[in-house]
Amino acid sequence: MFKEVKKHKSGARTGLLNTRAAPVKTPFFMPVATRGAVKGLEPPEVADTGAEVLLSNTYHMHLAPGEKQVKNLGGLHDFCRWPGPILTDSGGFQVFSLSNIRKITEEGVVFKDPASGRETLITPEKSIQIQLDLSTDIIMAFDDVTGLDPNKDKVREAEAVARTHRWLLRCIAEFKKQTKNMPKAKRPLLFGIQQGGLDKKLRQKSLEFVQSTEVDGIAVGGLSVGEPLKEMHAMLEFLSPLYDPSRPHYLMGVGEPINMHFAIEHGIDMFDCVLPTRNGRHGSVWINGDKKLNLNNSGHTSDKGPIDKKCDCHTCQQGYSRAYLRHLFKMADPLAGKLASIHNLRYLQRICEGYR
Amino acid sequence: MFKEVKKHKSGARTGLLNTRAAPVKTPFFMPVATRGAVKGLEPPEVADTGAEVLLSNTYHMHLAPGEKQVKNLGGLHDFCRWPGPILTDSGGFQVFSLSNIRKITEEGVVFKDPASGRETLITPEKSIQIQLDLSTDIIMAFDDVTGLDPNKDKVREAEAVARTHRWLLRCIAEFKKQTKNMPKAKRPLLFGIQQGGLDKKLRQKSLEFVQSTEVDGIAVGGLSVGEPLKEMHAMLEFLSPLYDPSRPHYLMGVGEPINMHFAIEHGIDMFDCVLPTRNGRHGSVWINGDKKLNLNNSGHTSDKGPIDKKCDCHTCQQGYSRAYLRHLFKMADPLAGKLASIHNLRYLQRICEGYR
Repeated sequence: MFKEVKKHKSGARTGLLNTRAAPVKTPFFMPVATRGAVKGLEPPEVADTGAEVLLSNTYHMHLAPGEKQVKNLGGLHDFCRWPGPILTDSGGFQVFSLSNIRKITEEGVVFKDPASGRETLITPEKSIQIQLDLSTDIIMAFDDVTGLDPNKDKVREAEAVARTHRWLLRCIAEFKKQTKNMPKAKRPLLFGIQQGGLDKKLRQKSLEFVQSTEVDGIAVGGLSVGEPLKEMHAMLEFLSPLYDPSRPHYLMGVGEPINMHFAIEHGIDMFDCVLPTRNGRHGSVWINGDKKLNLNNSGHTSDKGPIDKKCDCHTCQQGYSRAYLRHLFKMADPLAGKLASIHNLRYLQRICEGYR
Repeated sequence: MFKEVKKHKSGARTGLLNTRAAPVKTPFFMPVATRGAVKGLEPPEVADTGAEVLLSNTYHMHLAPGEKQVKNLGGLHDFCRWPGPILTDSGGFQVFSLSNIRKITEEGVVFKDPASGRETLITPEKSIQIQLDLSTDIIMAFDDVTGLDPNKDKVREAEAVARTHRWLLRCIAEFKKQTKNMPKAKRPLLFGIQQGGLDKKLRQKSLEFVQSTEVDGIAVGGLSVGEPLKEMHAMLEFLSPLYDPSRPHYLMGVGEPINMHFAIEHGIDMFDCVLPTRNGRHGSVWINGDKKLNLNNSGHTSDKGPIDKKCDCHTCQQGYSRAYLRHLFKMADPLAGKLASIHNLRYLQRICEGYR
């Protein structure tokens, strides 16, 4: 499934991940298409930034249009017109991000839509079934993400880790059951997720547990959820010698350039994050040197130059000036968010390409 | 400037309009980029629908970013990255559409922004100056558009026509003064606008007046402002033998397929309208036979097919299904409005191409 190609003295490594849709060189960054589209962008425009793998979300696609609908329409690739590999997050992150509307039991998680009152139960088995219906190429196990400060709630974190492990075993069992008749080359990959918040012992224990199973890839979950940068980096440093080198290492939800550099140099191969597109839609773009620029600033009103003279993205290459982009943001034209998203996505892809 | 190439027995004619940016075959339809962008679309995407001339708006560009700003940034073509011909409406239409916030005097029109209280005076001279600063290729004269039922307010309509004529002479004088040092090949075109509401005598008088001046093109203004279809068609029929065949005939603000067919077969060469893009953003698309389809309808939930199997637009050719588009509209993804806009723009371009 995965082959480490070269280990660099910086700590970074390059590799090749074989998915049933296509092989992909690591390290790579996945743009986020939560509901089946990277907001405002067409698939060829996403691919044009250098992206090869798209991320979508199990929970949101389950709500609309529903996995059965997507399956009847030929699967997520056909539905979204993205022929390349797709990874779906399992819905586990929503246990954290939608914590005000969910209830955790051993069976799974019940989400309650505040508007309609409709309740949705996601179990580990259900998450796997949905992802198989979506025909995703990289399936994520369903986990219990706390995002808590472990010093304040050690018990909850330890419980969450233990539950994540029990759920992982249920995910693996369900995955095996559902895919037993698939030829190996047609089978999606299944990744396990380690948790443990900012508790090193828990993290190590969790990583060892996940790596003791047959999962195809190792994901680090529950970081970049509000903790100080230093603490996240310390944890990545701590984990770095502990990863199984024969499997890909995916740091979930990370996409700040500074963190991507740090993570890649500490053994991480895969990333996803809403930042490049969400920030882009709000006018915030990265420029040379990982600096941030706000395109809404009136200082750009007369600026003929592109976002970044050194940038090879479509937005900069087509000659859209900072002045024009600022005008589009002021007019709330959706073109503004699209062009800034493209720039930011390309920025992160260049970081990955630099290591590859 | 303009050459009639062929007159068809349907009443339609084909021709060639020479603008300083490029020659354009008639009949043609201009997508509307009110504030310097066709909402959500990049210029190459607009051009890909078959559009060759873009329409922008003098009043709105004056408000933001301002014509001096655009001039300093190299003009509208550079600013918007649209190398082809650009026509700007004069602001006259806003005399009608913003009638609740404007005051007409002989000098011009004062618009008062309800939010800021800021007052903006547009005179015929000012409108020409703004359009020259924007570096538009086809300048429209500043007119007094009533949109009134002439049976209810004959006096106001007659006054508006007389004022439109006086303002046209002021526009021509200002245009000559400002362009006298320009070599002829570098000079933009100036179009006059005839008015008269639904009063045939007034319309005829107005057309004769506009055609008695040296303007490069004849525009029919103040139609498609809420009057019954039959009355608009009757007026187009009435005017059809009266146009000067040596100049192009531009029907302002019209873009319903049925009206375009009728107008082209009654001597019209040019169109613009917000309908294809505005309707598109709301999920309304034209399909074969000038029928309308609402992509928001739940009936499309399982529909694998494109908007229109016979359509050659980007949206239909890329294989985006009605089901996917419906999903995007439900999720309020800006991609939805963009893809539907492209389909509608292409629909109207095909009508024009059919006659060419």
